[in-house]
Amino acid sequence: MLNENGNLFIQITELGERKIIEYMQNHFDPMPNIAVSFGDDISAYELENGRLAILKTDMLVNKTDIPKGMSLWEAARKAIVMNVSDFAAKGVKPKAAIVSLGLPKTFTLNDIKEIARGLNFGAREYGAYIVGGDTGETSDLIIAVSLYGTSEKKGIMLRKGARSGDIIAVTGFFGKTAAGLKLLLGELNNSLDYEKKLISSICFPKARLNEGLKLRASDAVTSSIDSSDGLAWSLYEISKINRVGFLINNIPTANEVKRFSKVHRVNPLDLTFYGGEEYELVITLKPELLKKTVKSIKNIGGCLIPIGKVIDEPEILIEINGKKKTIEPKGWEHFKS
Amino acid sequence: MLNENGNLFIQITELGERKIIEYMQNHFDPMPNIAVSFGDDISAYELENGRLAILKTDMLVNKTDIPKGMSLWEAARKAIVMNVSDFAAKGVKPKAAIVSLGLPKTFTLNDIKEIARGLNFGAREYGAYIVGGDTGETSDLIIAVSLYGTSEKKGIMLRKGARSGDIIAVTGFFGKTAAGLKLLLGELNNSLDYEKKLISSICFPKARLNEGLKLRASDAVTSSIDSSDGLAWSLYEISKINRVGFLINNIPTANEVKRFSKVHRVNPLDLTFYGGEEYELVITLKPELLKKTVKSIKNIGGCLIPIGKVIDEPEILIEINGKKKTIEPKGWEHFKS
Repeated sequence: MLNENGNLFIQITELGERKIIEYMQNHFDPMPNIAVSFGDDISAYELENGRLAILKTDMLVNKTDIPKGMSLWEAARKAIVMNVSDFAAKGVKPKAAIVSLGLPKTFTLNDIKEIARGLNFGAREYGAYIVGGDTGETSDLIIAVSLYGTSEKKGIMLRKGARSGDIIAVTGFFGKTAAGLKLLLGELNNSLDYEKKLISSICFPKARLNEGLKLRASDAVTSSIDSSDGLAWSLYEISKINRVGFLINNIPTANEVKRFSKVHRVNPLDLTFYGGEEYELVITLKPELLKKTVKSIKNIGGCLIPIGKVIDEPEILIEINGKKKTIEPKGWEHFKS
Repeated sequence: MLNENGNLFIQITELGERKIIEYMQNHFDPMPNIAVSFGDDISAYELENGRLAILKTDMLVNKTDIPKGMSLWEAARKAIVMNVSDFAAKGVKPKAAIVSLGLPKTFTLNDIKEIARGLNFGAREYGAYIVGGDTGETSDLIIAVSLYGTSEKKGIMLRKGARSGDIIAVTGFFGKTAAGLKLLLGELNNSLDYEKKLISSICFPKARLNEGLKLRASDAVTSSIDSSDGLAWSLYEISKINRVGFLINNIPTANEVKRFSKVHRVNPLDLTFYGGEEYELVITLKPELLKKTVKSIKNIGGCLIPIGKVIDEPEILIEINGKKKTIEPKGWEHFKS
């Protein structure tokens, strides 16, 4: 916890989002017997029938979260998808969404229509419904989605649980959003097929809900997190909470990103590890169930890529051509980035 | 529904918040068999065990919702209270809140502490807990609270249900916030006791949760709504949805407001009917259970004031000294007010 003495007047930009949340949390009375609280992708508490209520909110702010070139429909859909991704990481189906919408005065009926359709599309895509909301006047567009569902207690995939010797695996390849953002913002050429794919990864992200549900059913997973703040950050979170480390020997860089890196002379490792707004799942699983689990994810049209193993030392190491290198615990963060 | 032809480029300021929500709602697929959807104070759907999940979100925006002179602690607490009030109107206990917080870059650690403490105070005051949240950078402070709970299906108090011949009653007196706002914003003298009370009604509003729970248990209530958009608006909503009207012969103006009206030469009816940010409950109930219900609310330290009766004609009439007058369906509304 932050030492308050003399610090009360420092600006939040010096702290970053995670420290702010941690600091606030210290002022909240904890709910007794809460099942999952701050520090995981969702919150959960036990209902009268022993099932869990699952709650999540994630806010999209135009200035920091909606790159130029993304439509309102895409932004609204994304506001839903980023919440669904957290449900996916826990293996829980979302049921209902409520939306707080901050709208600038200059918006037109057409803008509202785009937003409403994007929200609805995102919700229906993952089997959920928009059931309520509120609007207010803000200087910049804000879409705060809260997602709700229920779940059995058994088998919910938490961040806690990874053990040394487990396999670390991901549901897809990385680096596309970081490369896509460079295309969108740097006004680089983006007419080629592989470039379009990179941009689409930003404007039309997908949550790995089917994969998450299947992974939970596999009973193979020991810990799970989504990768919305970047792969390095997800690894670091799992590392920290479980006091373990990772040795990554199969770096999951997307093919389009390898090509982009060559053309634009960018380090593919940076794009792979330090992107963000990617919604792959990062899981650890029991080695003896790896083969079976990879197959079951393939059977539903997804993929599960083992990228290394969990080690005792609390470090994130990558191995390239026999050489080991440390990956720093950096990630995208509001107020700091 | 709005006719879209040619209207797509009109600005939302010409529509107002209610039309915006109505318009958006028309683009949302309805959840099948939803118990309570748009158009009531909360949303609700049936859980596996037959109970209802209750969901609500209400957003507080600094520019429009936090008057000068209100502290961050008070604003944060109020963001919770306004959501609790909607639960109160349905007779449902809130259990968990999640908060999306938009913070300006210039905020300090001390500001964060005030907000966290205000949120926690508001939640604990009504038996709920803050269990999760998200923060982002916004140009103006935004506190979007989502509130969750569960409830038996039986007896939940909805806006629909008022019948001609029912009594209309409220849980307190009106006009204090409208008068208090004039004191706060107009820089009028506010050192007298009655003036302090008026200001406190804005800075420290209370949700009538105990009253709501007791009212639900009474089985007397036929419809219920809170008065956050003003008494006139609440009456108008109940009138519209039930195709009934009201004859008000006991106008519930607070004593402090009567005094304020005399001193500052303001119409007390305007303050009483067209205020807002008041969190009294406005209910209709069976005449034969009125006496018993008034007593049971008194027993828990609250009050229930019969103000008139439900009539067939879809009008809101007040009767003063034998003369009848129509109350216009106006209320506070984002984007329009």
